[in-house]
Amino acid sequence: MQMIDGQKLLSCVTIDDLKDAVGGRISFCACVHNLRHMSGFSFVILRTGRYIFQSVYCEDTCNGDISELCVGAYVSVSGTVKTDERASYGYEITLESFEILSKPSENYPLHVSARKLGCSIETNLSYRSVALRNPRERAVFKISEGVCEGFRQFMLKNAFTEIHTPKIVSAGAEGGANIFKLKYFGQDAFLAQSPQFYKQTCVAFFDRVFEIAPVYRAEKHNSTRHLNEYIGLDFEMGFIKDMHDVMQMETAMLRYVMDYLAQNYALELSILNASLPVVQHIPIVSFFEALDIVGASSNKFDLDPADEVALCEYAKEKFNSEFIFVEKFPALRRPFYAKNSPEDAKLAESFDLLFRGLEITTGGQRIHDYDEQVEKIKNFGMNPEDFKSYLDIHKYGMPPHGGLGIGLERLVMKLLDLPNIRQASLFPRDITHLDP
Amino acid sequence: MQMIDGQKLLSCVTIDDLKDAVGGRISFCACVHNLRHMSGFSFVILRTGRYIFQSVYCEDTCNGDISELCVGAYVSVSGTVKTDERASYGYEITLESFEILSKPSENYPLHVSARKLGCSIETNLSYRSVALRNPRERAVFKISEGVCEGFRQFMLKNAFTEIHTPKIVSAGAEGGANIFKLKYFGQDAFLAQSPQFYKQTCVAFFDRVFEIAPVYRAEKHNSTRHLNEYIGLDFEMGFIKDMHDVMQMETAMLRYVMDYLAQNYALELSILNASLPVVQHIPIVSFFEALDIVGASSNKFDLDPADEVALCEYAKEKFNSEFIFVEKFPALRRPFYAKNSPEDAKLAESFDLLFRGLEITTGGQRIHDYDEQVEKIKNFGMNPEDFKSYLDIHKYGMPPHGGLGIGLERLVMKLLDLPNIRQASLFPRDITHLDP
Repeated sequence: MQMIDGQKLLSCVTIDDLKDAVGGRISFCACVHNLRHMSGFSFVILRTGRYIFQSVYCEDTCNGDISELCVGAYVSVSGTVKTDERASYGYEITLESFEILSKPSENYPLHVSARKLGCSIETNLSYRSVALRNPRERAVFKISEGVCEGFRQFMLKNAFTEIHTPKIVSAGAEGGANIFKLKYFGQDAFLAQSPQFYKQTCVAFFDRVFEIAPVYRAEKHNSTRHLNEYIGLDFEMGFIKDMHDVMQMETAMLRYVMDYLAQNYALELSILNASLPVVQHIPIVSFFEALDIVGASSNKFDLDPADEVALCEYAKEKFNSEFIFVEKFPALRRPFYAKNSPEDAKLAESFDLLFRGLEITTGGQRIHDYDEQVEKIKNFGMNPEDFKSYLDIHKYGMPPHGGLGIGLERLVMKLLDLPNIRQASLFPRDITHLDP
Repeated sequence: MQMIDGQKLLSCVTIDDLKDAVGGRISFCACVHNLRHMSGFSFVILRTGRYIFQSVYCEDTCNGDISELCVGAYVSVSGTVKTDERASYGYEITLESFEILSKPSENYPLHVSARKLGCSIETNLSYRSVALRNPRERAVFKISEGVCEGFRQFMLKNAFTEIHTPKIVSAGAEGGANIFKLKYFGQDAFLAQSPQFYKQTCVAFFDRVFEIAPVYRAEKHNSTRHLNEYIGLDFEMGFIKDMHDVMQMETAMLRYVMDYLAQNYALELSILNASLPVVQHIPIVSFFEALDIVGASSNKFDLDPADEVALCEYAKEKFNSEFIFVEKFPALRRPFYAKNSPEDAKLAESFDLLFRGLEITTGGQRIHDYDEQVEKIKNFGMNPEDFKSYLDIHKYGMPPHGGLGIGLERLVMKLLDLPNIRQASLFPRDITHLDP
């Protein structure tokens, strides 16, 4: 009987492995990222899952025919390691042998080994599976990984429970027409615009919860800042005094995430030439103060993109902060589950966080009282009957609570100064792109 | 100007906090889980996000009127802590004061404070937001959290990159009619049956990837082991020799997850009276050996639920393993991306992992060669043109690779010996349940 014992795991090579092997031999698997033939030798640039290693082929010292190698081939190589400050990470491998594991049937249609791909976003997306082989393109998604992992570690350290909630739902949480519809065994169903109802539900028994999951908005925008499917970093917490407790938690989380990125993703931050923001004191302005600051008409009910840019410039100049909170928006333009402000029922206990000119978070305190929620639903011209199971959470009791949602791709886009949000999504969904 | 500095975070009480406070005072927030009036005093059982604490109210020593408290109210309490081995975790709080933060407008329709809810699954799901306030019901989802976190930690430690791939797709990866359809800005679209194409794509540049995300199957099953939306734990890895490398990785991962649960979730495992499996040597049988073992006809092309139970009994008796791998299934019943077995093209390099009588994983080695994949698509009676962007990954080169998908709810169901998979999903989706 054959047995599997989980003891013989394939490993991946790291820079430390090269360092440890200096003066000795190393073997690993990689993709031939680039080939440069010089007089009497060739550079074979090897791409692993995270690194780009420089190796050298000489006919005399390597058992194998260089003409069999091509860019895009996957190979197993063996060689000796020496230090060379001109090589990537300071190490160079002198190839002794290689084995070809697989070969492409066509050459790359893009300059995968270039420092920047240098093609249009449209070409990039058409050949997405090739574009992502470019080290700069893929590095974006190591940063995404780091943001998610930093967020998650912070949440778990702070007693938040990770939840998974359904994305096929019977009603939209955020209202409006921007919702994808589908048939679910004969019933009308929708794709979740947020985990709002579900994360609130879970506060009743877990006190604090978070979720990292897809969010769907059927918006017909074709902009550099909208995706129709994106990843939401959501949390919700009970027992708050007011929404500032939520903002405190977000600020501490962002500080943790930036530290986590600095410690674990220096390589990718360097490839992307990115500078992380310092998360110190984040200023708060009310919505009407914000309008005043940007010189907008006080008849407005929301901030537009130019206002967001101007507010961030203001925060940077005046408080040396790349973030700014805007709070207390007109209640009618915020969700029906937002708590009205105690001092003025026309305002909602709702906030946005702006970062480098873009809204990356919407959050606030929610209504926890049953009668208050029923009344607000009616005031919004909706029918409480349509929210029966949602209203169960208020009926059977909820603590005062609040939370927020962060758009992962927006945060990553701004962290890395990417011109288009599509570059922060592995396989972006917009009004024209459904494939790959 | 108001500022948020992320320094004043609301905290949650732990058992260690009670321990540290013995002989002194403690203050925290909680839900009134149960009230038991005795002669001269009352037990006020307090539920926090993870714990159930016992407190005692005496009119003489507590500033507050007990008649204002009700089950389901959320409160802030202060009191002194003493050890009492009869109390939960060995500590009892003598209440000195309390403040009511919110009250329910109706009493719980279920016995939330009972050790087991004791209602039908149908009633449980109808009042899902109440049912989950039962400590045993909610404990299931701390175990889910632990499985995900253990899986993720293992993956990250082993150089897998976490990815997020779209769930709105242009083609089903797993074929068949079991797919949800939707309109995407006028185009026909589907909900992803798996992240298969995307995780393979990412192996081309990350070598190893994993994803934890929803998976959709429009199966009309109404069984105790099927959900129409579930969480898939997926990974995919390059440079494998054969599918046993994938099975080795899964075995090591499962061992890590079980250790992680034992170390971090002893409380919930005890509430649920669950026993974790020992992950040692997992036997492998071929599909045809499996048929032989269970005495099934060799004309079968797949295992049925009774076969899965019988195979697990066999593995337990013969090898003292609660897991068993079944490999080399008939190729025509496995996906079109599965590599054919080198020794017999009628078989696929595809495996299932069975655990306690249930299939929890499907995995295998994938085709990496372009011509081989085009031919297999044709042999399956499909048109390569319909898989153009998927075939790009083969055309421009892929290493030999393989991977697997695990159903989170199935694994949790079997870990905890739950009779119905719906109990392992916070808000299950089946053919009749779309709400809550």
